[in-house]
Amino acid sequence: MTQDAAASTLSHEVCMARALQLARRGCYTTHPNPRVGCVVVNGERIVGEGYHVRVGEPHAEVHALRAAGEAARGATVYVTLEPCSHHGRTPPCAQALIEAGVSRVVVAMVDPNPQVAGRGVAMLREAGIEVEVGCLEADAEVLNIGFVKRMREGVPFVRLKMAMSLDGRTAMASGESQWITGARARTEVQRLRARSSAVMTGVDSVIFDNSRLTVRPAQLELDDGEAIAERQPLRVVVDSRLRLPVAAACLRESGRTLVVTVSSDEARRATLEQAGAEVLVLPEATEGRVDLRALLAHLAEQEQCNEVLLETGATLAGAMLDIGAIDEMHLFVAPTLLGGEARPLFALPGLERMAQQRPLQIDDIRAVGRDWRIVARPLPHECAAPDDV
Amino acid sequence: MTQDAAASTLSHEVCMARALQLARRGCYTTHPNPRVGCVVVNGERIVGEGYHVRVGEPHAEVHALRAAGEAARGATVYVTLEPCSHHGRTPPCAQALIEAGVSRVVVAMVDPNPQVAGRGVAMLREAGIEVEVGCLEADAEVLNIGFVKRMREGVPFVRLKMAMSLDGRTAMASGESQWITGARARTEVQRLRARSSAVMTGVDSVIFDNSRLTVRPAQLELDDGEAIAERQPLRVVVDSRLRLPVAAACLRESGRTLVVTVSSDEARRATLEQAGAEVLVLPEATEGRVDLRALLAHLAEQEQCNEVLLETGATLAGAMLDIGAIDEMHLFVAPTLLGGEARPLFALPGLERMAQQRPLQIDDIRAVGRDWRIVARPLPHECAAPDDV
Repeated sequence: MTQDAAASTLSHEVCMARALQLARRGCYTTHPNPRVGCVVVNGERIVGEGYHVRVGEPHAEVHALRAAGEAARGATVYVTLEPCSHHGRTPPCAQALIEAGVSRVVVAMVDPNPQVAGRGVAMLREAGIEVEVGCLEADAEVLNIGFVKRMREGVPFVRLKMAMSLDGRTAMASGESQWITGARARTEVQRLRARSSAVMTGVDSVIFDNSRLTVRPAQLELDDGEAIAERQPLRVVVDSRLRLPVAAACLRESGRTLVVTVSSDEARRATLEQAGAEVLVLPEATEGRVDLRALLAHLAEQEQCNEVLLETGATLAGAMLDIGAIDEMHLFVAPTLLGGEARPLFALPGLERMAQQRPLQIDDIRAVGRDWRIVARPLPHECAAPDDV
Repeated sequence: MTQDAAASTLSHEVCMARALQLARRGCYTTHPNPRVGCVVVNGERIVGEGYHVRVGEPHAEVHALRAAGEAARGATVYVTLEPCSHHGRTPPCAQALIEAGVSRVVVAMVDPNPQVAGRGVAMLREAGIEVEVGCLEADAEVLNIGFVKRMREGVPFVRLKMAMSLDGRTAMASGESQWITGARARTEVQRLRARSSAVMTGVDSVIFDNSRLTVRPAQLELDDGEAIAERQPLRVVVDSRLRLPVAAACLRESGRTLVVTVSSDEARRATLEQAGAEVLVLPEATEGRVDLRALLAHLAEQEQCNEVLLETGATLAGAMLDIGAIDEMHLFVAPTLLGGEARPLFALPGLERMAQQRPLQIDDIRAVGRDWRIVARPLPHECAAPDDV
């Protein structure tokens, strides 16, 4: 088979798959922007590639068009997200594509950002460029699952991470929990943190573990770990009564710590602010608890959080599950038993009958070092899996 | 490739693998005998096959030699367990092989039964037959894991089965548990029961679920389900204070129910015996509890139990784990959450520090219908998996 014959196998899906692969390189760095990849194909050959690296830097299309140079004229461009039509930090990419003289643009998905939302596609079409939408759309949605959720629903995508024993325990009754899982699982958790806009926890978890909630470059085990860790995800501590100790390790780390409370204790607030925290007062939901829905809306609207990693204990995890705010769970299961006195995964007060059980969809189970990772999604209660399959 | 050329690929391992496959057909029926398969090969062709079906019927070698007829003369015989040398319910197989004029016998493993223990091999060698031992030995040991353990250690192989939610719960706080797992998982449990010599449980489980602890032919989903269910495994109910209700469903089923107690209440004993139970009084271990080690020894010695299936709640499961009596766990995990108030997998009183955790070896995780089955083995405490792998 000649090289040309090989090149002619460049289907839309193959080119878009390459664009998605490029986009994933921005997984840890594009916050709050979406991850986007772009491939320019001319004469059955890839003549330019690019992806968005970080906010304020050029979009994927600009990188790819620069790489293609004159070869962009008459080319087909594959881009994982609709090219932007608005002047943001950078000029509109739709305009750049028009000016480069490309003849066709294949888009995986329309941009859910209401500032774009089809306008990029319309601009291209008005300029006489052929546009196709929907190639590998499902993959493109997954790539930016948090950005898409924030744009469509005004809340971030919440991923719960828990480290548990095989009998469903996260810590001893005393709170002792380091370490249930092994180094490989902890690396996976580091990567989950690094891709998230924020890491959210309850104050009790911070008090027990004095966890830093940071991305540590060495533990990422990625070539560009140092560059990734330059952006520390926002640390969000749910702390209704402002009990966070001023000596908490997370307050001394680079990046921001947002303490979310319903307390009106101004003195305590000032003390925490002096120690490095930012304090956000939100309305109460029930029983002196922070309104978690309001918190999620705040994180989406004010902090542009796409993906939030929830790393916490049974109470906050259960409360988040109860309001339907958990989109995905990553359960790292260690091959060990901690017994019936140890701490549970979810406090679900009021769950007393089998009919009230919370059904899950298990998407993946695989070995991670000596542990196992289970990825699951909560299903609507009325959607319980049928008994017989 | 000619048929002869194909036949010449009949290595020792291929022939023994076939013998093991035949032996597995007896998985549900040979109790208390071991599962044994036999293949007779002459001139690079299989001329006879057989396996042991049930106690009192011919051994595998006899079936295979009968099938081979005159072709057994000068043949090589593959047998998964050393041929017996003693007159039991049937004449010694070593003698039958000698009389059939075979020239070579390949044995997967020596019979751990002290009545044989190498004597079969010795008889064959004395008759001038070439004998090889150890072909696929590990597979042969697994095939009869219970028989081997009983012969070597005087106790049965104990397999714990539990149905649990993803957060490690076996029932609601009320005891309600039907059904956590789906039909496919329940079929697997039926097969575990069917291969076991006994099914063991605690009296509380019987009181809560009124479970019959029987093998139901239809639920086995095997062609020979009816024949398999003719032998019901011995039902063993650990009932220190003789609280088993006389109306318990398990007392009205075919097969035997052994109630194991430390109670000296003769009236209650008589009542239970009248209701169909057999009552065994054993010494106390601690706090009025049945000595579980003595029970296991009894099951091996008096009931010839090879494999025991433990289907019970957190207390008995924890007690069995604590004395090191659980050899293997089959955890059927349903994609659901039951919450922190629901019943735990194992009560492990005294387990308060991470250093006391009970390490496991996970051997297998796979989907079973809508549920997942985890097969694990407890490791010695001092053998905890290293933190980093």
